[in-house]
Amino acid sequence: MEQHTRTDAYVDRYAARAAGMVASEIRALFAVAARPEVVSLAGGMPYVSALPLDTVGAMVGDLISRSGAEVLQYASAQGDPLLRERICEVMSLEGIQACADDVVVTVGAQQGLDLVTRLFVDPGDVVLAEAPSYVGALGTFASYQADVVHVPLDDAGLVPAALRETLERLRRENRRVKFLYTVPTFQNPAGVTLTAARRAQVLEICAEYDVLVIEDNPYGLLGFDHEPMRALRADDADRVVYLGSFSKTIASGLRVGWVLAPHAVRAKLVLAAESAILCPSNFSQLAVREYLTTQPWREQIKDFRELYRERRDTMLDALDAFMPEGCTWTRPAGGFFVWLTLPEGLDAKAMAPRAIAERVAYVPGTGFYADGSGHRHMRISYCYPEPHRIREGVRRLAGVVERELELRDTFGGVAPGGSAGGVHTPGPDTV
Amino acid sequence: MEQHTRTDAYVDRYAARAAGMVASEIRALFAVAARPEVVSLAGGMPYVSALPLDTVGAMVGDLISRSGAEVLQYASAQGDPLLRERICEVMSLEGIQACADDVVVTVGAQQGLDLVTRLFVDPGDVVLAEAPSYVGALGTFASYQADVVHVPLDDAGLVPAALRETLERLRRENRRVKFLYTVPTFQNPAGVTLTAARRAQVLEICAEYDVLVIEDNPYGLLGFDHEPMRALRADDADRVVYLGSFSKTIASGLRVGWVLAPHAVRAKLVLAAESAILCPSNFSQLAVREYLTTQPWREQIKDFRELYRERRDTMLDALDAFMPEGCTWTRPAGGFFVWLTLPEGLDAKAMAPRAIAERVAYVPGTGFYADGSGHRHMRISYCYPEPHRIREGVRRLAGVVERELELRDTFGGVAPGGSAGGVHTPGPDTV
Repeated sequence: MEQHTRTDAYVDRYAARAAGMVASEIRALFAVAARPEVVSLAGGMPYVSALPLDTVGAMVGDLISRSGAEVLQYASAQGDPLLRERICEVMSLEGIQACADDVVVTVGAQQGLDLVTRLFVDPGDVVLAEAPSYVGALGTFASYQADVVHVPLDDAGLVPAALRETLERLRRENRRVKFLYTVPTFQNPAGVTLTAARRAQVLEICAEYDVLVIEDNPYGLLGFDHEPMRALRADDADRVVYLGSFSKTIASGLRVGWVLAPHAVRAKLVLAAESAILCPSNFSQLAVREYLTTQPWREQIKDFRELYRERRDTMLDALDAFMPEGCTWTRPAGGFFVWLTLPEGLDAKAMAPRAIAERVAYVPGTGFYADGSGHRHMRISYCYPEPHRIREGVRRLAGVVERELELRDTFGGVAPGGSAGGVHTPGPDTV
Repeated sequence: MEQHTRTDAYVDRYAARAAGMVASEIRALFAVAARPEVVSLAGGMPYVSALPLDTVGAMVGDLISRSGAEVLQYASAQGDPLLRERICEVMSLEGIQACADDVVVTVGAQQGLDLVTRLFVDPGDVVLAEAPSYVGALGTFASYQADVVHVPLDDAGLVPAALRETLERLRRENRRVKFLYTVPTFQNPAGVTLTAARRAQVLEICAEYDVLVIEDNPYGLLGFDHEPMRALRADDADRVVYLGSFSKTIASGLRVGWVLAPHAVRAKLVLAAESAILCPSNFSQLAVREYLTTQPWREQIKDFRELYRERRDTMLDALDAFMPEGCTWTRPAGGFFVWLTLPEGLDAKAMAPRAIAERVAYVPGTGFYADGSGHRHMRISYCYPEPHRIREGVRRLAGVVERELELRDTFGGVAPGGSAGGVHTPGPDTV
């Protein structure tokens, strides 16, 4: 409900980059969406209640009693060395062979993204991102005054031919492309996964055009069908900077993520991290280290997978059962999100207040594009609500879409929502 | 020991600001200083072992068992509302009347500094800072390509006449001054405190020249003699942005600090925080909230004060007893640090390796100046070592200075250390 109409007396003092820090227009809606009678398919919150809270509590309590002088003290800026070794073990599940010395622990993967952008991006530099792309990344890129150029994706992920065309065009225009930002596995928001064949092509094209790849992979271990996909980083250690996170595999409230980067880049990232936060929290880091050392974390991830698989199934079944003809959606093989496309003439952003009036919330697609497009799309997530709520939420949503279709057919089209006017910084409720 | 001579293959890709991210030359020394036989007077680590670790462990364990679904989940970007109310109570001890809605919780005060600089400073903008100033702030300013202009301080803190002269000169030069950064109470590194009379003058001058004030106050509650000083923020809510921290009053490993800012600025800071880290850790935040709600935190701060007072006394007694003539030092009334000035012709930076060979470490003064000066100064801290170690460390240091003086008198001056070449990002061991 951040609607302050008073004049900002400090407006002439801000740095130029502050112009890119804009609150999302849908914030006010989210405050309403938090009401218990609303089924929120908007959030990206993991279902942390599935953790054995008594066990975790006892573990952390013992850790502080035993090692409080370390747990409660400043850490090194790069992060705890033993935790970084555990992180390398976790990444090995995706085929990554890495040395703990090339890992920097961060305040969630979001800080990794911020530091990488800080290190590489001058105002006006081009960053390539999928269309759609993670809203939090677009916010970070905007705050560094990057020029985001989107590359389309389809059900098999980022489209290599489109990537090549885009890079070719940017080369002709003499633009400085700093990196490709991609969430290749169980993408946020689209729910699609880059196929193995395309992974090789994407790496090949980026090598040809000498562009770095930022691989953001928070959901990689939450696949429903197969062994984890091989990470892009597993096949190109020099070109790929990898962002990891424990937010979805352990707990988001700990704010522990990491960056794996080529050695020279890693050294710079540590300096950037120091100027940003001095050092990450030992309290969080050593809790994660202890959890990975003493608890059955692989089994816990399996439990999370089963839980999210059931919710994904519930959502897809409900979509099949309730959604009117003309709607299409992705069928995620892991992660948290389904990407829904409305029939021609409908506008997910304009529809959002009407949906909330019908007690269901989603994230309109416009937030996931830097260019103001995305009006026909929305992200609906199945990670947090209980299955019966997911089914009810989709049923309500389908009703809203039905009525929009009737309006369209009666009046010949709904006026689209106002121009998005670029990127908006997300709240944690839209991650 | 970060001496990599291989070429950085990524050097042409970095943003311009990366040039300001330079590792401290004294890092290699610090690695050596961490050996147990070396008495380190270099660190700024609080003595967290003085906390009742069993009690804190039990408190956190219970908190997770009871409220794990909240503790382990994403937070709002602004920070927990109840914690922000507790923070207002803490600030009221320094005369600040504030509303929880104007507080943003940050990853230590360092992140507050980073966000404020991000919001206000364009490359080339002037930031005023005391001479000497906090090394971590200088690192942040450098990473945003600010032009730091120093204003001298003396035993009564920042010199108002010098502040006015500097602002007048910058006005004539048509420079854009974004803010004055100051640690007014128990300053890091100088250990001096801005007097009440000067506080009023500084605020008056900043109002006259329409310059914001960033008041960084991590040590304010750790005074040895009186009630806490009245904060600058207490007397000018519109001009002062206040940075607070629990690193020294509770525990540095939690990484919980805050910014109190005018409302419009606060709103922008939340957006900046979201793009930087999405949200602060609920795990840390709710541990602090629980501690402030259930534990005798005022008594604990008194215990810390007594502990640091004894160490300060030990250090001053040892300096009086051992230091050769010609050395001068400040006499802090609180906080962690003594600022020592060597006799003419001596160079604290050049001397540092010889001191470490004699098993004592300090931070050479050059790190605390953006302009490469400070060679005759050093920071020695009494916060972390046990009193008998402090005494022994000062004794060793005095011996090193004695020998430098003999060299100077024999050879007519010691060659100064290499040019500092600007600001260096600190490690947590030099906060």
